[in-house]
Amino acid sequence: MFETGLTRTLNIQYPLFQAPMAGGPTTPDLVAAVSNAGGLGNLGAGYLTPEQLRSTIQKIRELTDKPFGVNLFVPEQPEESKEAVVQMMDHLSRYHVRYGIAQNPLTLESLELFEEQVQVLLEEKVPVFSFTFGIPPQDVIQAMQQNGTVVLGTATTVEEARHLDLAGVNAIVAQGYEAGGHRGTFLKKVSESLIGTMALVPQVVDHVSVPVIASGGIMDGRGLVASLALGAGAVQMGTAFLASSESGAHEAYKQKILSSNEDSTEITSAYSGKAARGIRTKFMSDMDQYSGTIPAYPIQNALTREIRQAAAKANDPEYMSLWAGQGLRLVGGQSAEAIIKQTIEQAIRVQKRFQ
Amino acid sequence: MFETGLTRTLNIQYPLFQAPMAGGPTTPDLVAAVSNAGGLGNLGAGYLTPEQLRSTIQKIRELTDKPFGVNLFVPEQPEESKEAVVQMMDHLSRYHVRYGIAQNPLTLESLELFEEQVQVLLEEKVPVFSFTFGIPPQDVIQAMQQNGTVVLGTATTVEEARHLDLAGVNAIVAQGYEAGGHRGTFLKKVSESLIGTMALVPQVVDHVSVPVIASGGIMDGRGLVASLALGAGAVQMGTAFLASSESGAHEAYKQKILSSNEDSTEITSAYSGKAARGIRTKFMSDMDQYSGTIPAYPIQNALTREIRQAAAKANDPEYMSLWAGQGLRLVGGQSAEAIIKQTIEQAIRVQKRFQ
Repeated sequence: MFETGLTRTLNIQYPLFQAPMAGGPTTPDLVAAVSNAGGLGNLGAGYLTPEQLRSTIQKIRELTDKPFGVNLFVPEQPEESKEAVVQMMDHLSRYHVRYGIAQNPLTLESLELFEEQVQVLLEEKVPVFSFTFGIPPQDVIQAMQQNGTVVLGTATTVEEARHLDLAGVNAIVAQGYEAGGHRGTFLKKVSESLIGTMALVPQVVDHVSVPVIASGGIMDGRGLVASLALGAGAVQMGTAFLASSESGAHEAYKQKILSSNEDSTEITSAYSGKAARGIRTKFMSDMDQYSGTIPAYPIQNALTREIRQAAAKANDPEYMSLWAGQGLRLVGGQSAEAIIKQTIEQAIRVQKRFQ
Repeated sequence: MFETGLTRTLNIQYPLFQAPMAGGPTTPDLVAAVSNAGGLGNLGAGYLTPEQLRSTIQKIRELTDKPFGVNLFVPEQPEESKEAVVQMMDHLSRYHVRYGIAQNPLTLESLELFEEQVQVLLEEKVPVFSFTFGIPPQDVIQAMQQNGTVVLGTATTVEEARHLDLAGVNAIVAQGYEAGGHRGTFLKKVSESLIGTMALVPQVVDHVSVPVIASGGIMDGRGLVASLALGAGAVQMGTAFLASSESGAHEAYKQKILSSNEDSTEITSAYSGKAARGIRTKFMSDMDQYSGTIPAYPIQNALTREIRQAAAKANDPEYMSLWAGQGLRLVGGQSAEAIIKQTIEQAIRVQKRFQ
């Protein structure tokens, strides 16, 4: 009933991906539960060391023999003035005082991290590799595919989708404006790449040769059928799984997710230097008052990391990053299996209305 | 095949409304052509004098005996400092020089205009009355309904939709972020009321007791079926009809519509003082540099009116308002009848895939 080209390519039962949410939510339990329930679980691995990545993949494999995916961040080399960084460190020092933590020197992920992560994925022969924030070198895409791995890129405009298609990916995640977390935008400015899912999906479908995965604001069986109607071959749902029992999101984050509304989020670069959608927090309002330049990703991300970790320890969601999409009223706290079961059952009811 | 509660209430064949686009596009020809083809044509009448409104309704009735709608703007009383207005008049004088036109004193629509327009709609017993920018007084809604007119309000958030539901409207247009033209937002700030259609529609559907009309980024049969899947009882399509042969949009505007992309628009208050989505123009970029306050709607709208009219006369789209949504790659220049026929035929094909 829900067979598409993508479900056949991936050998999964339902065209339903759980979005790879880096930074904690996508535990091996969540990824495996989604895959075991017939969807495609995805590990958000952008921040993991090669050792963490390998052990996490092995844990997922202990929990499922079904296909799953791993998502990495295409690396960026920011150019930022020393003044901007020093000024931001000075601004952020108030939070270090707040939590009684030391302000350590700036340490960025090495530029080799991505290559090392890719090497792990090749050695582990993961079923699906997805990426965001750009396009990896051609040899990475080809090595993955020759290794039997299905490769997915992330686009926020038709032009980005065309670039990914030319780069030879197997399918494209079309990330609509509603989506939670970081924007995958890599060609134009983010402000010019905020296209709502309803408008984005059919326009991308019309201009690429590969299947499209709809993402952004899709929360249930209604969103699944709507996305298939728009021409998508699958959906990717993130926010819907954030408060699930298997999600590794912090308890205070889950509580905010469960008590927020469709108008509770905004797109901010306050936490990481890269535009991302999250529930409005005091940290975001504080940063609205900041008159300097927010250093580019991943510098700002490194500068705020300890603050976010200390806030989490203190159960203080107002200074954590609470990434979430615009479908917040539709989030429940069930198990991932129950979310998938309910989504599919509702999708069947919706489809029946069309018969 | 497309019968819904709304199509029965309105006695129309298809759950497809043509959006009421004020300022020219919704000619009697367009409104009547849409209604004659089985949809619901809608006149954007917010700027019309009572005399113009009455004669336009009569022209529509000469062209169709099918139901149609008329849309009005709920009036607002802006409070704006004299300085802000004088400073803007000074800023805008460059355009008066450009087009060799005089800068006339500011004249606003009288606050009685809305009441006079309502009186015309009551006398003409229009089949459908829709409104935006707020909620009219209770006695207006009741008088319309007692007169046999179906009443539709416009919401951009769940909270606005609930207010409309309590006010007793017969159905609610849920205006997603993708939509072209003015935002209907009336409770919170516009920046907090930009919810993508995919996320907005199901959340509104879950929280109101009346049918919901999806709008924003819906361009074809895929968008129609997607919206019905999300729980809408009908769709409202505006941009899709802008370049149609019956549309009264200026030829230069139509050409821009036909040559623009999904990422060509932005939300601006440069033209009217109220947030609206349109194709980026030089006038908008110029205004981005303006350091003063843009006077509130309808003051700014009155201040720029002569400039927009002069730009239209000079075939100069960069200084006209080019309202449009994010589905621009999907616009064609066919007749309204052909657009509806193609939309329905495509919707039937999409629905068949679910069987």
